[in-house]
Amino acid sequence: MELEPGEKIEDLQNGYLIIQNPKYFSFGTDAILLADFADVSAGERVIDFGTGCGIIPILLCAKTKGIHVTGIEIQQALARMAGRSVAMNGLEKSIRIVCGDLKDISGIVPCGADVVAVNPPYEKTGSGKENVSEHVNIAKREVMCTLEDVVFSASRILRPGGRLYMIYRTERFAELMACMRRHKVEPKRIRLVVPKQDRPPNFALVEGRKGAGGGVAFLPSLVVCEQDGTYTQEVKKIYHIGEENTCCI
Amino acid sequence: MELEPGEKIEDLQNGYLIIQNPKYFSFGTDAILLADFADVSAGERVIDFGTGCGIIPILLCAKTKGIHVTGIEIQQALARMAGRSVAMNGLEKSIRIVCGDLKDISGIVPCGADVVAVNPPYEKTGSGKENVSEHVNIAKREVMCTLEDVVFSASRILRPGGRLYMIYRTERFAELMACMRRHKVEPKRIRLVVPKQDRPPNFALVEGRKGAGGGVAFLPSLVVCEQDGTYTQEVKKIYHIGEENTCCI
Repeated sequence: MELEPGEKIEDLQNGYLIIQNPKYFSFGTDAILLADFADVSAGERVIDFGTGCGIIPILLCAKTKGIHVTGIEIQQALARMAGRSVAMNGLEKSIRIVCGDLKDISGIVPCGADVVAVNPPYEKTGSGKENVSEHVNIAKREVMCTLEDVVFSASRILRPGGRLYMIYRTERFAELMACMRRHKVEPKRIRLVVPKQDRPPNFALVEGRKGAGGGVAFLPSLVVCEQDGTYTQEVKKIYHIGEENTCCI
Repeated sequence: MELEPGEKIEDLQNGYLIIQNPKYFSFGTDAILLADFADVSAGERVIDFGTGCGIIPILLCAKTKGIHVTGIEIQQALARMAGRSVAMNGLEKSIRIVCGDLKDISGIVPCGADVVAVNPPYEKTGSGKENVSEHVNIAKREVMCTLEDVVFSASRILRPGGRLYMIYRTERFAELMACMRRHKVEPKRIRLVVPKQDRPPNFALVEGRKGAGGGVAFLPSLVVCEQDGTYTQEVKKIYHIGEENTCCI
């Protein structure tokens, strides 16, 4: 595999590799936790909104054989890089990367998907540091799509009973809940992520179900780090890592 | 103080007493946690929706001097019992108990309240055991008021910037978030209650602010019990109790 300037290959420690380029937004703990949280069965058709470097499709295929994932990415060069990662892992039969806008989702993939996964931009435009690249801005802020766009598009493409898996900042959690209910994707399962025991949660993992009735089950919170800053056993297992690594969330 | 048949006096361990009657729904840990969570300042005017035996007004006045609380209770005999508890504690200048329906709130108290507190019925009608008394049914189920009624009435009676303090089952948490936003009472502070460390939360303490912008802060979860079933130090402090008591949530 020929790499482009600046690119490097990262080992996902699960038998798969991924190409990263520092000029794009690198995947973080949030993507790893989302792929672990998403519960996809063999034979299901999954759409990953804003797939970036393709991390979520690759992790989902590593976890569950026999699924088919379409990763949608609006940035052409990034979509191409994701496609090369798919090829590098020999996953062309399971993963298709498409350069497109999730706001036009029903023109890109057939309706009736079983699952949508999305690790969306968390911040509104105009918030946070402004001195970042356009690539980072698209990944982190609602430049190309808002929360409303994401949930509306997910609702449009899911079959009745299909699931939306999402990770989001707890700061916008009330907004997320209201938005999902408004678009008939009922929150059914929530797992909050706390950086350390006794700290407030900073992320929420959410499973919504298209057209479902009310009632949501919270899981025990996912604790990322021990008090000494090393990963907890659960997170080490998710990351497929040994004892030496420390915390990064 | 003359007690009625079946009534007994309970010591709240904070210098205040309360009359309880087993034929009504007795206050639980949820009411205690809500009163602890509510942040009321001297001079503020508070409305407690569905005050029952008057536990929340009494606890709020015990915690903060110089506030004025109106407790609204739809069941006449229960409102009278709450009024006698107020008198027994010499709190007549701080607490007024009114028998009325919170759905008519603006006909009962002037608009522009600083704070609404409410420990509402958690269950929809038709759910749970049916063989309970009418009194218990009114306290536990949406017989007299729904979640929508509660939040709508709170929104109507609060001043701009006024706060709603509520405790609710996590099972209906998504519904609560959506309902609050719909009625312009923005969730601003959330504390989840977990029965034990590593368990899922079963209650949520929520502060909403009338007319506020988006963005909510989660606090560290409140852990009720240690692994051995005894109360945690924090809950013991909230309950004003010693080392001997065990868990009841």
